[in-house]
Amino acid sequence: MSSNSQITLDDCEALIRDVHDFPKEGIVFKDITPMLASGPHFSRIVNIMSDLLHSEGVQTTALACPEARGFIFGSALASKLEVGFIPIRKPGKLPADTHFIDYELEYGTDRVEMHHDAIEPGQPIVLIDDLLATGGTIQACAKLIEAAGGKVAACVFLVELEFLNGRDLLGDHQVHSLIKY
Amino acid sequence: MSSNSQITLDDCEALIRDVHDFPKEGIVFKDITPMLASGPHFSRIVNIMSDLLHSEGVQTTALACPEARGFIFGSALASKLEVGFIPIRKPGKLPADTHFIDYELEYGTDRVEMHHDAIEPGQPIVLIDDLLATGGTIQACAKLIEAAGGKVAACVFLVELEFLNGRDLLGDHQVHSLIKY
Repeated sequence: MSSNSQITLDDCEALIRDVHDFPKEGIVFKDITPMLASGPHFSRIVNIMSDLLHSEGVQTTALACPEARGFIFGSALASKLEVGFIPIRKPGKLPADTHFIDYELEYGTDRVEMHHDAIEPGQPIVLIDDLLATGGTIQACAKLIEAAGGKVAACVFLVELEFLNGRDLLGDHQVHSLIKY
Repeated sequence: MSSNSQITLDDCEALIRDVHDFPKEGIVFKDITPMLASGPHFSRIVNIMSDLLHSEGVQTTALACPEARGFIFGSALASKLEVGFIPIRKPGKLPADTHFIDYELEYGTDRVEMHHDAIEPGQPIVLIDDLLATGGTIQACAKLIEAAGGKVAACVFLVELEFLNGRDLLGDHQVHSLIKY
């Protein structure tokens, strides 16, 4: 049994702090860095995500994660589960041939990219990110997986801002979040 | 014993591919994404890094990692060791008060940032990144740790491009890399 098994999700949530007016005035940003800085709490979250995938019966051979904060939970969880880690990146960061999906932001558009050969046809992929807000990024990531012939087995988030209704963009996909605001 | 314990470092290295002319003409980029996509190989690398810290007697309570590829090994290793994970980020990404260090690139300068309160005075920190090339980024990260009152216990890289002499910038710091070119 891991030494962190007495730590609850509430204990982890207590280490998430509000930063006001970031990234712009009027926004309250949920800053997870104090939780990440505590080894027992960070590894506990990774264990809880792992348990969640098991208890929900989610079968996967790889996790895909948008940079950069998605990498934090995705790589820790992939390494623990001994499944593959697939980076989904901003334009121009991946060296080989890529697929891309453009998606709408409040002002303008953004793009996510994934290597052409990152996944195999029919491969079940779990998407991981730290935060489900409006859902635009993760919807684009799901489209990227499907355009490459993969299947989105589930989407898992540390934090969900429920009032932004990000789930609505994720259609029939299985969506799980550990901490809801 | 982990199911990946029969995998050697050579097996992992065999999954690193050369991508020519990235990020610009004449450069041969070492692309680790095929290795990351193989769960057993990725988790094996994390285990080897963990074993290395133990065998070298490196004591640490947190790993610090520059975004974005540094997050991949840093968070997986931090979670495994149950030590803290400290993100070092590009400008404007961290929400609370930050320190920053500017450093020279081939053309122009770049900046890395870390939260003011990310580390405690005297805290021994291990720096993790995927690649040691010219060493500019990791030298800036080391200065950031020291400016915040921390101690760099070691610097660990998956890949080192020895012909770029990045170690020269790291002074007396302990430097370890798993795969050398």
